[in-house]
Amino acid sequence: MQECSILIMNVGSTSCKIKQYLLPGLRECISMRFAGIGGEKPCEYVVKENGKSQSGQEASVRTYGDAIRFFLERANVRDVAAVGFKTVLSLREEGVAELTDEVIADMRALSGVCPAHNPPYADAIEQCRAAMPQVPMVGSFETGFHRTIPLHNRIYGLPYEWYEKYGVRKNGFHGASHEYASSYAVSRGYQKVICCHLGGSSSVCAVSDGKSLDISFGFSPQSGVMQLYRAGDTDCAIVPWLQQCGLTQSEIEKGFSVNGGLRGIAGINGDMRDILADETPRARLAVDAFVASVVRYIGAFYAELGGLDAITFSGGIGENSPSIREKIVHAVAHIGANLDEKKNAENSEVISTDCSPVKVLVVPADEERIVAQKVVSFLKL
Amino acid sequence: MQECSILIMNVGSTSCKIKQYLLPGLRECISMRFAGIGGEKPCEYVVKENGKSQSGQEASVRTYGDAIRFFLERANVRDVAAVGFKTVLSLREEGVAELTDEVIADMRALSGVCPAHNPPYADAIEQCRAAMPQVPMVGSFETGFHRTIPLHNRIYGLPYEWYEKYGVRKNGFHGASHEYASSYAVSRGYQKVICCHLGGSSSVCAVSDGKSLDISFGFSPQSGVMQLYRAGDTDCAIVPWLQQCGLTQSEIEKGFSVNGGLRGIAGINGDMRDILADETPRARLAVDAFVASVVRYIGAFYAELGGLDAITFSGGIGENSPSIREKIVHAVAHIGANLDEKKNAENSEVISTDCSPVKVLVVPADEERIVAQKVVSFLKL
Repeated sequence: MQECSILIMNVGSTSCKIKQYLLPGLRECISMRFAGIGGEKPCEYVVKENGKSQSGQEASVRTYGDAIRFFLERANVRDVAAVGFKTVLSLREEGVAELTDEVIADMRALSGVCPAHNPPYADAIEQCRAAMPQVPMVGSFETGFHRTIPLHNRIYGLPYEWYEKYGVRKNGFHGASHEYASSYAVSRGYQKVICCHLGGSSSVCAVSDGKSLDISFGFSPQSGVMQLYRAGDTDCAIVPWLQQCGLTQSEIEKGFSVNGGLRGIAGINGDMRDILADETPRARLAVDAFVASVVRYIGAFYAELGGLDAITFSGGIGENSPSIREKIVHAVAHIGANLDEKKNAENSEVISTDCSPVKVLVVPADEERIVAQKVVSFLKL
Repeated sequence: MQECSILIMNVGSTSCKIKQYLLPGLRECISMRFAGIGGEKPCEYVVKENGKSQSGQEASVRTYGDAIRFFLERANVRDVAAVGFKTVLSLREEGVAELTDEVIADMRALSGVCPAHNPPYADAIEQCRAAMPQVPMVGSFETGFHRTIPLHNRIYGLPYEWYEKYGVRKNGFHGASHEYASSYAVSRGYQKVICCHLGGSSSVCAVSDGKSLDISFGFSPQSGVMQLYRAGDTDCAIVPWLQQCGLTQSEIEKGFSVNGGLRGIAGINGDMRDILADETPRARLAVDAFVASVVRYIGAFYAELGGLDAITFSGGIGENSPSIREKIVHAVAHIGANLDEKKNAENSEVISTDCSPVKVLVVPADEERIVAQKVVSFLKL
């Protein structure tokens, strides 16, 4: 007989990952990752169970709702206490919330601010609710961890009324990852921590005594550290200038959100491994600019924190690219971070030298576990 | 008989400052500051000569051209070898250039990027040229000092073609001030220097061996450190969000450029002294947010520089506000900057303690002198 469980769903624009956690104790049971949802080809999936992987294709999975139905059947899951979503941004909610029509509408209202995240999440939630109408759907918003950021670090130099009336302020994202990585560091006794989540989407977070003090992301996930194909920090005068140069609104938007970032500089339609492998000046420039943008935030947050005990690396690049970690840590050696090159090459848990004043950790961030814990706590399961 | 001289003009949107330097040797002779040019009331002016000040009103001064004519007559100046302008941004020039019709057109093309600077400068140059048609007009662009910034610190995470075709990159401004302050620090043996120009317009610059390595300003003077009434760093998703909220383009533009910054947060239409004197939570929030934005850049540039020898403070706030300097320096004490509170209160030249690893200097930046030196060198006077 199967125990009671919760499912956690991590949604991308054409992909999703579903993980099952058994209750009580949140033992991870089975996970499935779907890619190419809504595409012309059959959807591809990978199942992970008991340490084994199996992949396949399934033409019947055309929506997120199809994916969860396929998951329930394939994994023979029956008693689901809740489905949790790693939701991103809502107009009013920023913690954990039941995903009512009202909250979904609040997410859709911000589709323009989070175009890559809010529309697919709202779709996925509605489709899963239709597939499992009796099961509560709960969102753990990525902004939740950043509610502790003091207002002087959140507010922009803009009319105060815009903050009060329209919520214009630094929201911060990647909350589940930064909460996971910083909790890990705090549990090892480190108080002042800078968490680097580097992947397709990248951010740096300053954490003091387990609380978010500042984050590189701003009002939207568009700003901060340079992203793989999103811009990161820019200047608001660029858009009107490009309009004056004759570019269309669509060309400009795409340049900021799809054709920008590392790929935009390098002119390569690949991931960090492809860009690192490429020896053209533009590819090297892209890597240098990316590293510089991370180093700037580490320095900025070192200043804000008033000291530093540990730097953590998470995310696809943070966990798997010794070369990028080396460039970043070498640049901040004067802050007290000394890399052990052998441990770094092995993606070890601790990659700083034994006597390094600032410890450097590789923390594979289990974001779904953080969401699962929050759902359990919210529903008192 | 009067010696040969050059005039340097520093232009604001309704004000200008003209200084006369005698050749050779660049001894400062007389300066006049005009306020309220083009307004309904008579223009106000202050003359400084031989350490004495005298103020007055002059209804006939309605344009920058009138101002320079009034200056020539009032100061009894005859033999002018050149007029130098502390110009801001041009499409193609970024060093020192003769202000031809072509260069002025290049400045006007960027009026949207520098709305507070380029239109009045272009007007002033044309009017002065009409008033003194035989005298060469030379511009020393504020971007010139930043040509040494490496491309990986200048380029944005945007399509590379935008950099090549449209010049989208970090331009950097306040070049005359940062060059003056960093030269001062270099002449005292400091190699790694962070220059803070804090005034109505504020920026932080990283200088290594006398060369600009990075600057808080971006493509426009709109980004970077929070300004008195301009935004500083924001997020490009804010503008479309405010449009969605129903604000007009004009309201949005004004919020970023006129009703924002410290004044926008504090809700006070004064300068830093008024905001510091105000004890409302919003005024305190504005000061804290301003200080945080400077501290973030000091940290970012400390990381980039790989160490730090000196911090300099220039500009109206930087030179005259012990309170703001104290808040900033205390926040970065862990970087090695230890304030001598008595010297700070007195606006001394060195305001760090004798044993402070990082020296902290107050440098009244003589921007016009930097421009004068560049004009002399450019024209081989």
